[in-house]
Amino acid sequence: LSTVPAPRAAAILAWLSPEERERVLRLLSEGVARELRDLLAYPPNTAGALMDPRVFTVRETETATAALERLRDAPGEVREIYAIDDEHRLVGVVPLHRLALASREDRIASIVDPAPGMITSTVTREELVEYLARTGLPSIAVVDTEGTLIGVLRHAALVGAAEEEALIDLQRMVGASVDERALSPIGFAVKKRLPWLNINLLTAFLAAAVVGLFESTIATVSALAVMLPVVAGQSGNSGAQALAVTMRGLALREVRGSQWRRLVFKEAMVGAINGFAIAIVAGLGVLVWSRSVGLAVVMAISMVLAMATANFAGASIPILLKRFGQDPAQSASIFLTTVTDIVGFFVFLGLATLAIQML
Amino acid sequence: LSTVPAPRAAAILAWLSPEERERVLRLLSEGVARELRDLLAYPPNTAGALMDPRVFTVRETETATAALERLRDAPGEVREIYAIDDEHRLVGVVPLHRLALASREDRIASIVDPAPGMITSTVTREELVEYLARTGLPSIAVVDTEGTLIGVLRHAALVGAAEEEALIDLQRMVGASVDERALSPIGFAVKKRLPWLNINLLTAFLAAAVVGLFESTIATVSALAVMLPVVAGQSGNSGAQALAVTMRGLALREVRGSQWRRLVFKEAMVGAINGFAIAIVAGLGVLVWSRSVGLAVVMAISMVLAMATANFAGASIPILLKRFGQDPAQSASIFLTTVTDIVGFFVFLGLATLAIQML
Repeated sequence: LSTVPAPRAAAILAWLSPEERERVLRLLSEGVARELRDLLAYPPNTAGALMDPRVFTVRETETATAALERLRDAPGEVREIYAIDDEHRLVGVVPLHRLALASREDRIASIVDPAPGMITSTVTREELVEYLARTGLPSIAVVDTEGTLIGVLRHAALVGAAEEEALIDLQRMVGASVDERALSPIGFAVKKRLPWLNINLLTAFLAAAVVGLFESTIATVSALAVMLPVVAGQSGNSGAQALAVTMRGLALREVRGSQWRRLVFKEAMVGAINGFAIAIVAGLGVLVWSRSVGLAVVMAISMVLAMATANFAGASIPILLKRFGQDPAQSASIFLTTVTDIVGFFVFLGLATLAIQML
Repeated sequence: LSTVPAPRAAAILAWLSPEERERVLRLLSEGVARELRDLLAYPPNTAGALMDPRVFTVRETETATAALERLRDAPGEVREIYAIDDEHRLVGVVPLHRLALASREDRIASIVDPAPGMITSTVTREELVEYLARTGLPSIAVVDTEGTLIGVLRHAALVGAAEEEALIDLQRMVGASVDERALSPIGFAVKKRLPWLNINLLTAFLAAAVVGLFESTIATVSALAVMLPVVAGQSGNSGAQALAVTMRGLALREVRGSQWRRLVFKEAMVGAINGFAIAIVAGLGVLVWSRSVGLAVVMAISMVLAMATANFAGASIPILLKRFGQDPAQSASIFLTTVTDIVGFFVFLGLATLAIQML
C-alpha cells in the first residue's frame, strides 16, 4: 500500500471494515498512515477523498533561486507549483517555465499567476465533473474553508471521475443506488434496490389494471393475451432507444435551451416511422399465426401509436426530470416502462374491443 | 472559429456538409484553414481527429539555452516539450523542470526522457480510453506510422473521450448506434435503430409463443393475462439493475478474472431475496384483487423464481458478451428482456397450468 499513490491507497482502504482498516494502517509507517487517515476522513466521492495531498508549494516571499533549489530535491516529478502565503493559504500557481526563465533574485510573488481552478474539499464528484466540463482544466487546487491549500486533483482522478459519473447514470436509470458496486455485499444490494422494485411493482399493477379493464375482451379472444408481450416489448425497446440518446445528449450538453422541442418532435417522428416499418412485419406475423385480418390490423395500428408515444416519452422523461431539478437519469427507465406499458396495452386492447366483431 | 482550439474547431466543422465546410474554410486565414483540413482528414473518433496538432518541439541536438530562448517566445502556455530528431521523429519528452535546472550548454539529448505514452493517429477512441485507464497519463504524443510527431492528446480531449465512451454504453445496450446523437436527422436515427427493433420483434414473438403454449389456460382463467405485465415488469426491472451494476463493474475494471462466479452468484441471491420481498407484496395484491389464494401463491412463487433468473441473466449477459469478444453493452438489454420475458411467462403460466384446479 505504501507504494501506490495515496488517494488510490485510501480508496482501497475505504472498502475495508473499520477494524481491518485500523489493522492495515498500523502496519504502515507513521507518515503514510497519517496521510491515509486524513484522506479517509473526507466523505467518499468528494474532492477531499479524490485529491492527492502531496503538493509542491513555495512561499510567495521566497526567491526563484530558493524555489529552484528545493525543486531539485523534490521526490518524483513535479507537475505544478502552488504559491502559498505564511498561513498556507493558496495564492496562485507558478508556471514552471516562468520559474525557469526568472531572474535568480526575483521573488515568487512577482511571477505567480492566479490559480486557474480552485475548489473546496467538500465538492462532490458530480459537481466536480460539471466544473471540469465547463473549465477543461488538467489539475485543480483543493482548499479548505479557510483557503488553506490541502491538495491537488490531477488528471487521472478527474478522468476516472468523469467516466464513473457517466456510468453511474446506467444504475440510476434502473433504480440501483449510486454507491452500489459489482461486488458489493448482497445485503447492501438488496436494501438499496428494493425500494425501487416496490415502486416498479406499483406501476406494474397500474399496467395490469389497464389490462384488467379489458378482461372480458381477452376472455372472448384469448389470442390477445398472447400478443401483449409483443406490444410491450416493442414499445419498451423503442422508448429505451429514445431515452438513451436523450440522456447522452443531456449529459454531454449537446441539447440546450429550447432545442428540447426539436428533440422531442424528432423522437416522436422516429418512433412513428420505425413503428410503421415494424407494424408491417408484426402485422404479417400475426396474420400468419392467427389467420385473422382484424387482429393483424389492430396489431399494426397499435404498433405505430405505441412506438410513437414510447419515443415521445423516452425523450420527454429525462428532460422533464432535469427541468424539475431532478437527476435526468433517476429511475428514468421505471417511469418509461410505466408509460409504454399503459399506453401500449390501452391502445392495443382498446382497438381490439372496438373491432371485436372482426377478430 | 479561429479563436477556439483547433480540435474543437475541427469537431464543429465535421458537422457541416462538405460544401458548407469548404465555404467556412475559405473564410479563414490560410494557416488556420490548412491545420483544420489536416485534422479533418482523420476519421472521426480517432486519436488523429481528437489531438491538438500544435506541439512545442525541440531538436535533440539543440542546447538548453536555445530551447529556453524559443520557449520564452512561444505563444500561450507550454505544458509539455517534445524532443524530435532531424526527421521530425519523436525522441522523447523534456521535463520542464529538468530544462529549467539544466546547465546552459547541455544538449537536449542529455536531459530527454522516453515519452511516457505514444500512440498512432489511427487509434480509436475506445482503444484510447482503454489505454488511458491502464496508464493514467495526462497527455499522450500522437505519431504517424513513421514515428513522426504530429500532435498531442491533452487532458480535456481525454476526459471528454472517457465520459463519452461510458455514455455510449447506454445507447449500445438498447441497440442504438454509437454515432447517433440527440439531434441527428430523423432518417439517420430510423435507419440505425430499425435493425435492432426487428431483432427485438423476433424475440418478442418468442415470448408471445411461450404465452401461446398456455392459451387454453388463459382462456379458462383470463385473470392470468392481467397478471402477465406484473411478472414481466418486475423481472425486467430487477434484471436491468443487475445488468447496470455488472456493466459498470466491467467498464471500470472492478471485476477481474475468476470474480465473475462470485458476481453471478451474488446477483442470483440478490434477485431471490428481493424476489421474496416483492412476492409477499405482489401475492397480497393479487389476493385482494382476485380473492383467489391459488393465484396469489402462483404469483408469489413465480416472482421469486423469475427475479432470481433475471438477475442471474443480467449479470451473465455482459460477462458472456465480453468473453466471446463482443462489446459487453451491445444490445444487452434486448437479450435480457428476451430471457426475463420467456422465463417469467413460462414459470408463471406453467405453475398456473399445474395448479389450475385451485385458481
